[in-house]
Amino acid sequence: MSTVVNPGLEGVVVGETVLSNVEGEVGRLTYRGYDIHDLAEHANFEEVAHLLLFGHLPTHDELGDFNRRLASRRALPSGLLAMLHAVPRDAWPMDVLRTATSAVAHFVPHRPDGSHETSVDTAVDLIAKFPTIVATWDRMRRGLEPIAPDPKLTTAANFLYMRTGEKPIPEAEKALDTYLVLLADHSYNASTFSARVTASTGADIYCAVTAAVATLAGDLHGGAPAKVMTMLEEIGLPEKAEPYVRDLLARHEKIMGMGHREYKIRDPRAAQLEQMAKNLTEKSHTKWYLIARALEDASNKVLQEAKPGKRIYANVEFYTAPTLSSLGIPSDEFTCMFACGRVAGWTAHVLEQFSHNRLIRPQATYVGPEVHPYEPIGKRHGQNGATNGKSAGANN
Amino acid sequence: MSTVVNPGLEGVVVGETVLSNVEGEVGRLTYRGYDIHDLAEHANFEEVAHLLLFGHLPTHDELGDFNRRLASRRALPSGLLAMLHAVPRDAWPMDVLRTATSAVAHFVPHRPDGSHETSVDTAVDLIAKFPTIVATWDRMRRGLEPIAPDPKLTTAANFLYMRTGEKPIPEAEKALDTYLVLLADHSYNASTFSARVTASTGADIYCAVTAAVATLAGDLHGGAPAKVMTMLEEIGLPEKAEPYVRDLLARHEKIMGMGHREYKIRDPRAAQLEQMAKNLTEKSHTKWYLIARALEDASNKVLQEAKPGKRIYANVEFYTAPTLSSLGIPSDEFTCMFACGRVAGWTAHVLEQFSHNRLIRPQATYVGPEVHPYEPIGKRHGQNGATNGKSAGANN
Repeated sequence: MSTVVNPGLEGVVVGETVLSNVEGEVGRLTYRGYDIHDLAEHANFEEVAHLLLFGHLPTHDELGDFNRRLASRRALPSGLLAMLHAVPRDAWPMDVLRTATSAVAHFVPHRPDGSHETSVDTAVDLIAKFPTIVATWDRMRRGLEPIAPDPKLTTAANFLYMRTGEKPIPEAEKALDTYLVLLADHSYNASTFSARVTASTGADIYCAVTAAVATLAGDLHGGAPAKVMTMLEEIGLPEKAEPYVRDLLARHEKIMGMGHREYKIRDPRAAQLEQMAKNLTEKSHTKWYLIARALEDASNKVLQEAKPGKRIYANVEFYTAPTLSSLGIPSDEFTCMFACGRVAGWTAHVLEQFSHNRLIRPQATYVGPEVHPYEPIGKRHGQNGATNGKSAGANN
Repeated sequence: MSTVVNPGLEGVVVGETVLSNVEGEVGRLTYRGYDIHDLAEHANFEEVAHLLLFGHLPTHDELGDFNRRLASRRALPSGLLAMLHAVPRDAWPMDVLRTATSAVAHFVPHRPDGSHETSVDTAVDLIAKFPTIVATWDRMRRGLEPIAPDPKLTTAANFLYMRTGEKPIPEAEKALDTYLVLLADHSYNASTFSARVTASTGADIYCAVTAAVATLAGDLHGGAPAKVMTMLEEIGLPEKAEPYVRDLLARHEKIMGMGHREYKIRDPRAAQLEQMAKNLTEKSHTKWYLIARALEDASNKVLQEAKPGKRIYANVEFYTAPTLSSLGIPSDEFTCMFACGRVAGWTAHVLEQFSHNRLIRPQATYVGPEVHPYEPIGKRHGQNGATNGKSAGANN
């Protein structure tokens, strides 16, 4: 049987969605038909989450209701806080977010078969709790008492408040809010696809969103902004960006946060984030934006010399680093902040998957040894003499 | 653009594997070339895990080493036990296994970027700890103190011992051991695919295996055996199987545990499990096997009347129910037992994915509203008048 193996599933269309559209050729991203630039400028995260979950932007009354629903779900149950108190302080925030996401389910009523309702209500539960989990762990690992959410604050303001105990300045709230809007959905990215694969077996929304958090953690997905921050710190000054890039390329290493499989021109979210990083740098007297800008320019200058006419663009991860860093968020929490935005998309995708489900179960081609007889333990040859000695980590 | 949407990825070949081969047409399952019947009869779970991870069945010395490695990793860190003590007693065992799998990572050293080593060592850590987690939660939720693993016992014997404090009879150990062998791997099933999707972003083995546990929970995957048990309990006596099936079909409901997308003839694991269930029924004086057998016969009798010449076969989930039930394992832990076997396959697949990785990132077709202008909040119409009012749960 001749079969084509497609290990990245590139170009394979696995489903339909009404939630967002990535038009890579023209650099456009829309949520349910709204351009991301319009949403980033005019709508807040709660409006966008409402759009994704309910299908339309909320009226004043609907937004008020939705905000009250979120506020009622933000606090963490005391049992969940007790669990987090038992986690070692050096645990990675993304690992803790994954564990806590999974653990939220223990404090929600379940059906006789053990599963939970997959509904707007449980979606709201997860969207509301994500920033609380991240801020709570941020304080616990610093040896500080967690701060309860303030029902009068937005998602973005609450997060900043729960981290520090101080209500944020309007520019900081707006920057984080816009960041969450920009990151809220992106069609079938790897973590969203992961959530849909999990939901496709009939597993509930807590299962699916836990899987999505797990998948977001990788360097090829949500893990990139922290690596961008490491670069910016290593560079230290804008004028050192060019020698840094030349050195990186001489060692055949990648520049983190540049390029994207989907976008052929600049990622529209990068432009929004760049502007925000620029504003915040002025407000917070930090240098990260200036270094990032110098790094993008230097990357393109060096690339032009090697491959004239070719351009590489910053992706959404790139300007995430200076933006979140200027807000005082440590780099090992960047991926958690990505999750705080994307959980709106994940939950909407899980509801969409449930609404017309089909088990996602692809095929693999077997390329291992032919069928052969069993050898009793006394007649085996061990590692060196094995006839089928390919280890799992050394596949042809 | 005309694109074919394949929502189940049926027939799409997403990768190559040397680990196992499902030949559905002839009803054959092999792990690295060994027929599942040979392995079920002659090899134990530790030998099979070794085969999957290292590529060959172990010699006496290798098996001794591997058993010592497993034994050294079985106990749960005290911090993890403290976390489990904070979980409400009515939490679903599969939810707890998912949380605990994620939490194991907090007690393992991580790299500066937060990620953990993905290696045979961390694979062994997970394979060793799964049965301990399940047995520990089994006791905690009954209000009993957990029992520490015994380094002299096998995986199967340890599980039964940690549940009850008594060393199992040889028949019980053998039955559970064979069950774990049969369930250890099954090519790119949904949970294994989920683990590989997660690992494909560069996320570590703890992320990937947590995602796999999340995915296994669904009714269309590892959740089925508990539903089979509910059926067996509802039937109660073998002679009531036929009227039960007729009633089910009259209500257009499915018979859980019958049929499989991959196998055109009987799942080879079902035959092995049936034999085990039969032996155990005699030993344990339970009736579950007899009811299951009557149910499979009745299903085929009724199907023959409706569609002559057609046959439906029991799948691996079907005889899992009487087997595990005869071992005293409650039905809401069945999926956890599936995970205790499959974790050998999951970890081997994650190592294989890491060895030649490519980000798994399929496409979706956008079928939502066209791009349209933004309406300020005062000009929106809300739920009833929305022009793009499809909710996430009501996609076209």
